[in-house]
Formats: sequence, structure tokens, C-alpha cells
Amino acid sequence: MSRDGSSAEPNRGGNATFERLADATAATGADAFVHVGDRFDDDLRYLTRFAGPDRDYAFVSVDGRATLCAPRLFAEQAKREFPGAVVPAGESSASSAAGRALEVLGERLPSPLEDAYVLALPSMPAGATRAIAAAVDEVALEPIDLGRARKTTAERDRHAFVQRAAQRGMARAEAVLAAATAVTAENDWCDELRWRGDPLTTERLRREVNAVLARFGVRDAGNTVIGAGATCADLHFIGEDRIGPGETVLLDLSPRGPRGYYADLTRTFVVGEVGEWERRTYDAVAEAQDAAFDVLRGGAGTRAADVHEAATGTLAEYGFESGDVDVGMYHGTGHGVGVSLHEAPSLSSEGPLEAGHVVTVEPGVYDPDRGGVRLEDFVVVTDDGYENLTAYPCEIEPDPDRIEMVSDTSD
Amino acid sequence: MSRDGSSAEPNRGGNATFERLADATAATGADAFVHVGDRFDDDLRYLTRFAGPDRDYAFVSVDGRATLCAPRLFAEQAKREFPGAVVPAGESSASSAAGRALEVLGERLPSPLEDAYVLALPSMPAGATRAIAAAVDEVALEPIDLGRARKTTAERDRHAFVQRAAQRGMARAEAVLAAATAVTAENDWCDELRWRGDPLTTERLRREVNAVLARFGVRDAGNTVIGAGATCADLHFIGEDRIGPGETVLLDLSPRGPRGYYADLTRTFVVGEVGEWERRTYDAVAEAQDAAFDVLRGGAGTRAADVHEAATGTLAEYGFESGDVDVGMYHGTGHGVGVSLHEAPSLSSEGPLEAGHVVTVEPGVYDPDRGGVRLEDFVVVTDDGYENLTAYPCEIEPDPDRIEMVSDTSD
Repeated sequence: MSRDGSSAEPNRGGNATFERLADATAATGADAFVHVGDRFDDDLRYLTRFAGPDRDYAFVSVDGRATLCAPRLFAEQAKREFPGAVVPAGESSASSAAGRALEVLGERLPSPLEDAYVLALPSMPAGATRAIAAAVDEVALEPIDLGRARKTTAERDRHAFVQRAAQRGMARAEAVLAAATAVTAENDWCDELRWRGDPLTTERLRREVNAVLARFGVRDAGNTVIGAGATCADLHFIGEDRIGPGETVLLDLSPRGPRGYYADLTRTFVVGEVGEWERRTYDAVAEAQDAAFDVLRGGAGTRAADVHEAATGTLAEYGFESGDVDVGMYHGTGHGVGVSLHEAPSLSSEGPLEAGHVVTVEPGVYDPDRGGVRLEDFVVVTDDGYENLTAYPCEIEPDPDRIEMVSDTSD
Repeated sequence: MSRDGSSAEPNRGGNATFERLADATAATGADAFVHVGDRFDDDLRYLTRFAGPDRDYAFVSVDGRATLCAPRLFAEQAKREFPGAVVPAGESSASSAAGRALEVLGERLPSPLEDAYVLALPSMPAGATRAIAAAVDEVALEPIDLGRARKTTAERDRHAFVQRAAQRGMARAEAVLAAATAVTAENDWCDELRWRGDPLTTERLRREVNAVLARFGVRDAGNTVIGAGATCADLHFIGEDRIGPGETVLLDLSPRGPRGYYADLTRTFVVGEVGEWERRTYDAVAEAQDAAFDVLRGGAGTRAADVHEAATGTLAEYGFESGDVDVGMYHGTGHGVGVSLHEAPSLSSEGPLEAGHVVTVEPGVYDPDRGGVRLEDFVVVTDDGYENLTAYPCEIEPDPDRIEMVSDTSD
């Protein structure tokens, strides 16, 4: 991450966002837009580019003029990151962030503050909303479209950077799995995998992956999902489980880059002999993903749900059900990714895909008694198709040579 | 992290929290407590222990009976982590989390929903608050004390675990600094430090630290602050800067553990010859920290601000100012840490310290033209003193043998 990055992308991009926000505000008849939140509020991150502290700060927009009320100790960082005016705010609570926002509103608005009609997002804290509502005529809570779903070229590049790091992490996992050996466990009731002398667990594998992500300058963000056998059927398993030979090992990596953008990559492996259920399920999921890509080749204008239906249709040919089921595919085929890991559009939605949409393509099949397979790539929709930001092979057997992809991370 | 961890700490701890919440709710005359938020809401994390998804879910408490409305795909995880009743919620928006909360309220409350007086935190999203307020008699927004500041023994242990990982990360940084060599840069106007053939930067050092944190099962959480020279004066510098010989290198590590608890550790080093300003400033800060510890020896009942005043008093003897200054100590001496990196109590507050408070002790002195020094330990207040969770020496010159602390992380 560069020291400030603002030289790589000057005010123009920020101003485009501010202009879109000003248009959306004007369309509702509001005099101003206000938002209050902390570093974990992704709308605020998107609007301000400010990584921010873990306490509330305020953003104010009046006629396209954007102001960030940053806590005093973070004012320098705010000036580096925010493409608008920064005013310091000394206090730390939500209501005082709101108080500072009201001061800025009072200065910027041409008419008295008590006559103001203010637009805000429903995610704004209730306390801040109440404080602002007490000082103005009305606060309207509207989930306005900030334009987050349609990525710019700069945003696409940030996603691609993080996805490359995710691929390095995946290669590390694949190398570890390839190096693991099956032994008969002491209790003698099942075989287990060992690596470097100790039982291989999802947590050991996770730490290996996360160390590689860190070396490439991205954060695992608590999202390194690794399941083994039955725990693959838990879509978000971040706990510890023994990894055995012959069972599916599902890795879903969603690291976050220094500018806040996420990646998303899932592969599934089996160490040792691949059983019939595992092989057939893998083939079904891979074919479902191919079917999804076939639809995505239509590019912008494609009905999003057609992608999901292509995937589930292929799975149905293999006898796997979809929807609210206990065995089969019980999630959507994909979701948008940006400064949030999950955002619009959903590949189950009726709306058309648009150029710049960044979406996952991730069919999966699970059987809590056997395991689960999911394969996930990460693409940008274009006018006449899509660009896959993923360049990682899909092979059920871990390849020991994949480690070459991460050779430059070794000590 | 264990697969669920609930066996290590059964319902009792959760019930104590729920009972405290029930008492606080009853004290306001409210019939129920409701909160809505996502995985980034630390109050919700504390109340539920549920690491949760990145979309809103709801928590409801009626007469000490706690219910978590978890999104369907996260219901299994919720059942592992939440020490109360889990009901699935199918939808993803804040208002539908509120809708599910209203259904639970309707089932649990003895009187009609429209007569209910509901207590909520000011941090609840305004949209969810509006939806609930429309269905009940009144929603009162109150910043009630959930008891987060007073840690249990189990919480203390989680903090200690993460602080040990932070120390491993610091040892890695110290080893890298000790191995760096000063060379005359190509442009010949200043010396620079090189490590493994390339210029050593704050970002390279950060990646080394973060990889070690990952290997020990904790997340850097975007908090690996590393400054060099002038950027030490930026208290939250997470960008890239060249590291030169003779300048201060400030590392402030605040990783987060798998159960959500943070650590906090800061050390400052100088590679090569230590200049007069750097040495004297280091001595002043170390002495200020000692003075703070002297006051903390009073344990529970000590006025928190006495700790801060002891530190700033010592710095004043060295001629360093404190408060709203450009050169000197322009932050507080410490803050509480828990499932938030910054929480109550502040060591600048008038209130007495209590047993179980986990606080940082981190005096610092900065001169934007020269650099900055901060030294930070992390302690638990006890009835008759404090327990320091930190066991990392304070030495300005990096010690190459510190790497032994991380020897078990090498490949």
C-alpha cells in the first residue's frame, strides 16, 4: 500500500461519487446528505476512502460539496485519504459526531438549519439520527444507490491485486495438502493426515494460508473458511477440525486489500484416494460453474438469475437439488463483491447484470454426512462478456508443484 | 480456536451477561431489550459471542431470556457460539432483522406488542429502530452499561493469548531490524537500511509481523501501525515509508484473537547509532511509563486520571509538553481494551479503576520533525495492584537474539 495513494487516483473518482450522491440527494428533494459511522461501515468507507478509527465520525454532503468530520488524532490520515474537505472533530461518541455534522450543515446550508430536509442511510446509528433530527426539519432514511455495484477500472485493479494474493494463499494450502501423509491414527478407528509430524487440522492449514496472505500485504479478515468432510457443509466454518484422507477439504479465501476491496476464491481438494461421491460431486460442480460461465458470456444485460438457474439446472442433471434443502446446493450461485464481501448484485436477482459488476461464481454441493464441494471464481462483467480475475486451476487432487506460485514468499 | 469453544465456557458466563442486561432493562422500566447489527458491532459480539455474518441480525432479551435471530445459512455457527436460543431468520436487510426481532418479541412478551416499551442502544441502525418503533409503544435509546469493562478470568486469558502472539510479531520485527544494514543510498543524500538486499520499509516490516501473527492464529486486523522517523508522529500510520538508520521505528501491534479480544503492544527501536534526542526521549517515555505503573500499583479504587497525570508529570520534568500540542504527548496514557480495541475506561477519566479493567499504559512523545517514541504495555487491574500481560523488554537497540522467541514459526 502506498503511503497515501491519492496521487494514483486524484479527486476525479471521488468527485464522481460525490456528484452521484448530490444527484441522488437532489432527486429526493433533500437539502443535504449526512452519514455517521465508524471504520466498519462500508458505505462510509466507499464514500470517503477513509480507513478511519473504530469510533464514529461524520460525512456531510451539500450540493456536491463533501466534508469529512474526522477525529482530531486521525485528521492527518483523513487528509491523505479523503478527496474532499476535512474538519477535525474532537469528541468520540456518535452523538458528538452528529453534533459536528450539524455544525458543518449550519455553515454550508444557505437556509436555516431548522428548515433543512436531510437525507440519510437507514444504517446510520439511531442515536446520531435522533440528534440530527432534533435540530433539522426532517431526516429521511432512504437506501439510496451510491453506485457501489459498478466498479471503476481502479476498483477492478484493486480486486485483481487481492485475488492474486488469495491465489498465493491457496497455492500454499495445496502444497501443504500435497505434502501431507496418511497414517493410521493412534485410536485406530480411522486414518488421519499428518504434516510435519503432527495431525493436519483446518486451523493449521488456515494459519499457513493467512501467513502467506499477510506476506502479500492483504488481511485474511477472519474469512479464511476451511472445512474438512462434514464441516464443508457448514458454509462458514472457521473452527478446528481434523483433516482425513479421502474427505473433501474446502477452502474459501476472502481476504481484504489495503484499500478495502475484497477477493473471493474457493477450491476443494481430496488428499489420497478420491471416492466415487467426491469425484462425481466435483465433476457436477465444475460443470455447473461452466454452465454459469456460458450464461455470463452474454455480458451486460444478462438476467442475473439466469446464471444461477444454469448452475442449478446442471446440478439437477446429476440429481442434486437446490434451494432450501439439506443435501445439495443451499446457497446462491454468486454475489457482488466490493468494499463489502457481500454486496449487490446477487446472481439470484431478476435485474440485468451491468458492466463493472464484480461477482463471484460459486456453485456448491453439500451433504452433511459426506462433505462438500464448492468452486468459486471472481469475475468482472463487461459489455460483451466477462473478465475472470481468477487464474487458478480446478483439480481435485492437490498438486505439489503449485507451491512454485508462492516461492517468493519463503524465508 | 476450538471448533465451538462452548464447552470450555458454558452458558454461565453468557447468563451472567444476560442477567446484567435484564437488570439494566428492568431498571429503565422497559419490557425488553433489542439490538440489531452485524459482525462489526462489538456490543453485539459481546452480548452474543457470535462472530456473525457481514449483514444485520437481531438480538432480543425479555426477562433475561436471550434470543438470537441468525441468518439461516449461519444458524449452525450461531448454535455453536451463542449461549441462548437461536431462531433462524431468512432475510438479509436491517429492517427484516428488525422484523424477525418483532416476531420474537410478540412471542415472548406477556402483553400486546403495541404496548411494549423497548430499550435499545443508540448504535442500533436507524432503519431497524424505525421499524421496531412503528410496531411498539416506545423505543428508548440508552447507552446502558453491559459490563464490558470488567473482564472475567476467561476474558483475561483471551487477552493474554493474543498479547503473546503480539509479542511474537514484535520479536520478528526486532530480528529484522537487527539484521538490517545501513548503506549509502544511490542518490547519495542519505543512508538507508537494507534487508535481504532491498530497502527496508514500514510495509515490508509490517508483512513480516503480520505473517507471524497469522501463524499464531490471530489477525492483524489492519492495526499493525509502523512509523519511521517523521511518520512515528502520525499515531496510526499504516502506510509505506523508508526506514533509515538512526531514526525511530515505532511498532504498535493490536491484533485480534479468534474469540474477538484484542491485544495492544508498542515498542520503539533505533537501528545504528542512537542520537541524543532519540535516547533522551526514549528515557523520558520509559520513565513516564514507570511512573504510570507506580500509580497503578494502587489497584482498584485508583483514580484513572492519576495514571495519566503521573506520566505527563514525568515527561514535563524532561521538558515535554502534553495535551493539544504539536510536539510532545498529544494523546492519553491509556484506554480499555476488550472486544473493541478502544473501550472504557480511559486513563484520563475521573472515575476509579476497577478490578478486571484491562487497560493499555502507553506514554509517547512525538516531534514531527524528528520522530516519535511510544512504549505500551497491556495490564489487568486487580484489587491490590495490576497484572502486566506483557513480558517484552524495552530496549531501544534491536536485539538479534529476540528471534528465538519466534523460532517455532520458521518453516
